[in-house]
Amino acid sequence: LKRKVSELGFIKNLRAAFPRQGLGDDAAIFKPAPGCEQVLTCDVLVEGVHFDLKTISPWELGAKAVAASLSDVAAMGAQPRLYLVSLAIPKKRTLNPGFFQALYAGMRAWGTAFGAELAGGDTSSSPGPLIIDIFMLGEVEQGRALKRSGSRPGDLICCTGSLGGSKAGLVALKDRRVSREAAALAIKRHRLPVPRVLAGRFLRTKRIASSCIDISDGLASELNHLAEESGLGFDIEAEAVPLSSSTLAVAASLKARALDWALYGGEDYELLFTAGPSRLKVLERDFSRLTGSEYHVLGRVRKGRGVRIRGGQRWKVLKRGGYEHAIF
Amino acid sequence: LKRKVSELGFIKNLRAAFPRQGLGDDAAIFKPAPGCEQVLTCDVLVEGVHFDLKTISPWELGAKAVAASLSDVAAMGAQPRLYLVSLAIPKKRTLNPGFFQALYAGMRAWGTAFGAELAGGDTSSSPGPLIIDIFMLGEVEQGRALKRSGSRPGDLICCTGSLGGSKAGLVALKDRRVSREAAALAIKRHRLPVPRVLAGRFLRTKRIASSCIDISDGLASELNHLAEESGLGFDIEAEAVPLSSSTLAVAASLKARALDWALYGGEDYELLFTAGPSRLKVLERDFSRLTGSEYHVLGRVRKGRGVRIRGGQRWKVLKRGGYEHAIF
Repeated sequence: LKRKVSELGFIKNLRAAFPRQGLGDDAAIFKPAPGCEQVLTCDVLVEGVHFDLKTISPWELGAKAVAASLSDVAAMGAQPRLYLVSLAIPKKRTLNPGFFQALYAGMRAWGTAFGAELAGGDTSSSPGPLIIDIFMLGEVEQGRALKRSGSRPGDLICCTGSLGGSKAGLVALKDRRVSREAAALAIKRHRLPVPRVLAGRFLRTKRIASSCIDISDGLASELNHLAEESGLGFDIEAEAVPLSSSTLAVAASLKARALDWALYGGEDYELLFTAGPSRLKVLERDFSRLTGSEYHVLGRVRKGRGVRIRGGQRWKVLKRGGYEHAIF
Repeated sequence: LKRKVSELGFIKNLRAAFPRQGLGDDAAIFKPAPGCEQVLTCDVLVEGVHFDLKTISPWELGAKAVAASLSDVAAMGAQPRLYLVSLAIPKKRTLNPGFFQALYAGMRAWGTAFGAELAGGDTSSSPGPLIIDIFMLGEVEQGRALKRSGSRPGDLICCTGSLGGSKAGLVALKDRRVSREAAALAIKRHRLPVPRVLAGRFLRTKRIASSCIDISDGLASELNHLAEESGLGFDIEAEAVPLSSSTLAVAASLKARALDWALYGGEDYELLFTAGPSRLKVLERDFSRLTGSEYHVLGRVRKGRGVRIRGGQRWKVLKRGGYEHAIF
């Protein structure tokens, strides 16, 4: 690690960023909490595939990269603890030291906000695009991690926050017809998502969720994951899908359908979970108060297979990758 | 994870490779051993920077990528436990499923050989080169990890195995003047390094090493790391640097200096460590028998600063990055 970072000339800044370990060693050291198990995840972000430096600042990119991993840890009901960062840095373009300072500042801000420390990493030059790979470790009470499987017929299907905002923000950034004022919250949503770490911990410690996943690829995809992993059918109401006023405003100004963005848009980083009906009382009483976010009941788990969505009196099958324009 | 891997169409093969977790979940789950702390490292390998698909097979590349991380864990005296793999896969070139099967087979073989299981990962397409990033977690007795700092004046400076072989192998692969038979062992060394996990555990559990680092960037660089981290001077003998007969044969056929390859070549993945003179007896008695590798005493730690190397009656200062052709 040390040598490679040193070559890039910002080791001194990084040293201050590594409170937990001697950066001088071959690996970071972590002392696990007794009675916990760990969740481990990595997310690789590729310039030109996952992000575009024209529509996001380096600080936001750092925060967003960490948010993607925090969201995975949140979906397991775990507390984020530490992360390592690998960078492949384009040789040909000049990304100045200020770029990397801002990138790391964004990572550290979002990490710290949700309890995770930067513990190490690796850096290489690359003949290709900028690539950021984040590995994250979280802790959860032994045997209590939330899974994608585990829902039962009759469970409520719920999500946190609102959906489609990230896609609305991205669309707004690329289309001058959209008023920046109306789109402001959606754009913020796209650039700086808030991972639902508190919500995940709430769903775990209050024993609410029978299954859980983070909504990184659009609601349609995640519903299908949960239904398949439990071997059950999921029915939701189109009207129940939460859409923010900013998302609706962007959609209205482009005559687009906000519901499509919620179903297929991705990068919302909300949580989708199922819960036994008896847990509704605790959700109603404590969820918003303790997590700072909202939740919405979208529908019910049933026997059978597949995901269905109802708009008015019509039912449609909602496929995983099957983008359908103006589904209702 | 699941979705992205699925897009690439080899999820079914990968499922068999993930015995520890449901690949279906957002993160892998790991139960830490009581009384241990963890070491965490990542190594990013970039095509065209760290490897060339013309000189290494996909199986060997997988094994070598894992070996680099295993070597970091070994240098901390820790036992490797699990790893996650992020891939950025070139869009434009066709790397067929067989390529990735072989890559993962190599990773799994080398991981399994040294006690680490593949626990998860992420995969993305990329407009650039193939990039492999491996995160690895190891375990070591609480408070007992080997560090780069900690040597004392009078300590012996030692290394495992032999040095310069990886560079000799790479040179031989690129130069037709070298007999493949003479170079065979050096080429194997370059393509399929054996990380010194057993040696690291021996140095830790027998309380031999006062400091340790893996030799991934050449002996000159690693000596300087250890000297700097302890704030001491390191003196070694050029004649004591171990060079294999295959390395010497490649050097002879090209009229090159094998010592230069050992000092500046890199990718040897041996361990460099210091040990109090009282530990020599245990090293002599048990090291080869218990670790399956050899060790060599290169010199001594002294008060002062800097690294010096003696050839005949001449002393030279050995700088970190200062490649010097035919140093003696």
